[in-house]
Amino acid sequence: MNRERPIGIFDSGIGGLTVVRAIQAALPAERIIYFGDTARVPYGPKSQVTIRKYASDDISILMRYQPKIIIVACNTVSALALDVVEHACGNIPVIGVLKAGAKLAVQATKNRRIGVIGTQATVSSNAYACAINSLNPEIEVVSQACPLFVPLAEEGFVDHPATKLIAREYLSEFSNAGIDTLVLGCTHYPILRRVIEETIGQGIRIIDSAEAVALRTKELMTESGELNPFRKSFAPHLLVSDLPQKFSRLYQLFMNSELPDVELVEV
Amino acid sequence: MNRERPIGIFDSGIGGLTVVRAIQAALPAERIIYFGDTARVPYGPKSQVTIRKYASDDISILMRYQPKIIIVACNTVSALALDVVEHACGNIPVIGVLKAGAKLAVQATKNRRIGVIGTQATVSSNAYACAINSLNPEIEVVSQACPLFVPLAEEGFVDHPATKLIAREYLSEFSNAGIDTLVLGCTHYPILRRVIEETIGQGIRIIDSAEAVALRTKELMTESGELNPFRKSFAPHLLVSDLPQKFSRLYQLFMNSELPDVELVEV
Repeated sequence: MNRERPIGIFDSGIGGLTVVRAIQAALPAERIIYFGDTARVPYGPKSQVTIRKYASDDISILMRYQPKIIIVACNTVSALALDVVEHACGNIPVIGVLKAGAKLAVQATKNRRIGVIGTQATVSSNAYACAINSLNPEIEVVSQACPLFVPLAEEGFVDHPATKLIAREYLSEFSNAGIDTLVLGCTHYPILRRVIEETIGQGIRIIDSAEAVALRTKELMTESGELNPFRKSFAPHLLVSDLPQKFSRLYQLFMNSELPDVELVEV
Repeated sequence: MNRERPIGIFDSGIGGLTVVRAIQAALPAERIIYFGDTARVPYGPKSQVTIRKYASDDISILMRYQPKIIIVACNTVSALALDVVEHACGNIPVIGVLKAGAKLAVQATKNRRIGVIGTQATVSSNAYACAINSLNPEIEVVSQACPLFVPLAEEGFVDHPATKLIAREYLSEFSNAGIDTLVLGCTHYPILRRVIEETIGQGIRIIDSAEAVALRTKELMTESGELNPFRKSFAPHLLVSDLPQKFSRLYQLFMNSELPDVELVEV
């Protein structure tokens, strides 16, 4: 074990940068290597077979950098292909954003009714409900796919009346469900957190799965003594499979900082 | 030359089915082989390098079926990678949806002011303006990217208030432009034709590039005597690189008929 090895994080695109940001806040002395599969994004609307193939490609790219831990920032991969990632990683610990979010939601709920929003693939997989019920079988989970939230976030329509209308439609599913906790089960959704909070109403605790996975990573690495001993902060090392025109604008939207150097890799 | 060989059509996903429908209406006796790259859709937000690589993969799949003509139903590929397709096709004629749409728009405009809407990649390439100005350099072209139209169409939000709000925002670009013709420069947009027409207002002629490419194909094949002599109609032969859950619903939205057998191919 080498405590100076990086934390490896991957996602279908740039949504996982919300996880990078949360990890940087929780563990500022860690090196981060991030891969975003921007050439094939989004994964959410695609089939399980294709998502599993892509997850296998993604992890083989990250493994070249000998990470000490792997974080699956993509909820869709966490839901449908976590075993593919675990198998490829051998002894390296793997943390999926989904289980971390589910665990935090279970800790948060008082009335045992949790809402989950995510992509079509994540919601159809029922993986959040499974993860939550494996921790507490008495919790009721109500899920809703919100397919337009990713393109709306990527367009920067964070405060647009159309986004509010669409949020109202998607989240109306929860109006009579009596939930007290809502999991943002897609790494893009924190970008729309304010409109989601306003629409869902007061008194419902929002669980950001990016924050949840950062907490879980800190816990795990503290227990195993794998924290980087140096007290220096590093810019993340970014790998992408495509570098589209809007990348720099999106990076700023997600990270609130200027784009560092980015490396293009082939998938 | 074998007149019974199929017409090959490809697109980044299922949007090109609007072209299949237009070809079936114009040339009901033709066999159609269609490839949709549903595993890597959408192309519109991606870089030129990636779009050109994908176009090369797509055409090599279609070439296995010995088509007598190739139709590039994807506006993004027509804009950024038509030469890649032409090179791979050798002697087989290639018709791009973009040039066909540009030609019809030039014939339609009376005041020489044409509007074009499309994906980010299509609009940034300026390819419609180039194609239009190569036919008539005096025409002024005003373009606007409408990135949310594809996800809105795919969600079936064809008559949703949010779609109307977003259309109003995108199309406001044209309110003082004095255009008399608007090109739907993306094969998904015919699905939203009604809301686009209502928003842009009366007196502006809408050019559907799917219909334009069908007209051009009929012209070309009549001239060269390549029309299928049999008077039988065929269901299209569908190839896709991914078969997501919502495929059947999307097929119905685009084709207004039940999904036939679909073949999964690897890219």
